[in-house]
Amino acid sequence: MPLKIIMIKIAIIGSGNVAFHLIRAFSASKETEIIQVFARKKQVVESLIATNKITSDLTELKPADLYIISVSDDAISEVSEALNFSERLVVHTSGTKPLDFLSNKNRRGVFYPLQTFSKNKEVNFKEIPICIEVENSEDYTLLEKVAHSISDKVFRFDSEKRKALHVSAVFVSNFVNHMYRIGSEICEQNNIPFEILKPLITEVADKINYLHPKEAQTGPAKRGDKQIINTHLDFLKDNPVNQEIYELLSKAIMNKNL
Amino acid sequence: MPLKIIMIKIAIIGSGNVAFHLIRAFSASKETEIIQVFARKKQVVESLIATNKITSDLTELKPADLYIISVSDDAISEVSEALNFSERLVVHTSGTKPLDFLSNKNRRGVFYPLQTFSKNKEVNFKEIPICIEVENSEDYTLLEKVAHSISDKVFRFDSEKRKALHVSAVFVSNFVNHMYRIGSEICEQNNIPFEILKPLITEVADKINYLHPKEAQTGPAKRGDKQIINTHLDFLKDNPVNQEIYELLSKAIMNKNL
Repeated sequence: MPLKIIMIKIAIIGSGNVAFHLIRAFSASKETEIIQVFARKKQVVESLIATNKITSDLTELKPADLYIISVSDDAISEVSEALNFSERLVVHTSGTKPLDFLSNKNRRGVFYPLQTFSKNKEVNFKEIPICIEVENSEDYTLLEKVAHSISDKVFRFDSEKRKALHVSAVFVSNFVNHMYRIGSEICEQNNIPFEILKPLITEVADKINYLHPKEAQTGPAKRGDKQIINTHLDFLKDNPVNQEIYELLSKAIMNKNL
Repeated sequence: MPLKIIMIKIAIIGSGNVAFHLIRAFSASKETEIIQVFARKKQVVESLIATNKITSDLTELKPADLYIISVSDDAISEVSEALNFSERLVVHTSGTKPLDFLSNKNRRGVFYPLQTFSKNKEVNFKEIPICIEVENSEDYTLLEKVAHSISDKVFRFDSEKRKALHVSAVFVSNFVNHMYRIGSEICEQNNIPFEILKPLITEVADKINYLHPKEAQTGPAKRGDKQIINTHLDFLKDNPVNQEIYELLSKAIMNKNL
């Protein structure tokens, strides 16, 4: 008689970018089973999971070992209050919201995957750090098992530490991407293919595997080259926001030299 | 009788990060020969080239097909004036200084490799875009040949276009690295290993190979999540510079949503 492996039953509440990639990852794992997905618009997740497993009614959620609320941060509290069951394990996926942002009628936890997710870009979940936190230590084993079922990198962080990590992540991810956007727009306005900047972008990201960012810094501000900085500020005069960003960041880099 | 290949004779003037990597790349190429390096401090380049090819006296420079001035932008003019020869091909490596920043006693050009160079981090020059510009079109063939001897990506850009490219490069390279530095410092202050952010950093850089930075943007500012933004600004209250950077960049991203 074949050994029956008992899979951990997971319900995902949400259909945003994080939910989308979690559904994919847990569906691919042999240790976990997505038993249900709550999505206001069913069609968003229809490509990922059988239609009979999708509900748009929170009160229809079935018994599961773990409920992952992956909705916008503002909605976490409301959604967790709206669940019509108690004493079950319910986690959110926010980097910044504390654990106690969840309704205390259920056993609470956090399951924060540290990555930038876009629906039309695949990611390798094995490499993605997952930060977990639980209210009751007896829930740790299960949540850790779930995290390890999709990732090799699992960390136990409390809410304060997770918030610090999230702030860092905004700088190295969201703000970095905005720098790419400004660079691409300047290229477009000057008929320069953005492609030309890609080897530079790759190298800058790769460099910090070998050098501390402090040692890796180069450029006019690092050299204190005010002539070049002023030439660039003049070049940016038609875009006051970009000019202000250039000036503030150059000053910040120069002040680090002092 | 073996065919004698005539190599292009290059003299490098300077010993900074760019000069350092150019010396390496041209020494490795079969089409070019570094006949001399000018370095104020000879020991900086002694690991790269035979001692008898290093001079610290500009008036000792020997006849070469090409002189590459790779010094700080402020010193380019002075150094090019100090050369005691004329009618030879002399280029600088600056992204921002125009071609006519060089003394007009020689034939002028620009040889700008678009990359961030640190002495203790190797680079693959084949992938590095080189932007070239010449005053006299008859010098183009030689300069292009020299560029192609070390890189697969050679572009002919005039000074205005090169400046636009350099400004973009400052955003996607120098400012991005400063974001990494802020992220790493927040991690250090909160006993979080910076390693944990590296998969995110790699993914953000990789993502723009698949998505335009506009499409790739994620995070609290992109979602217009003011609660999280305020929580993060409060978290940063002890570092007014980082707080100001966070606020300015969040506003810039939010304004792009409008």
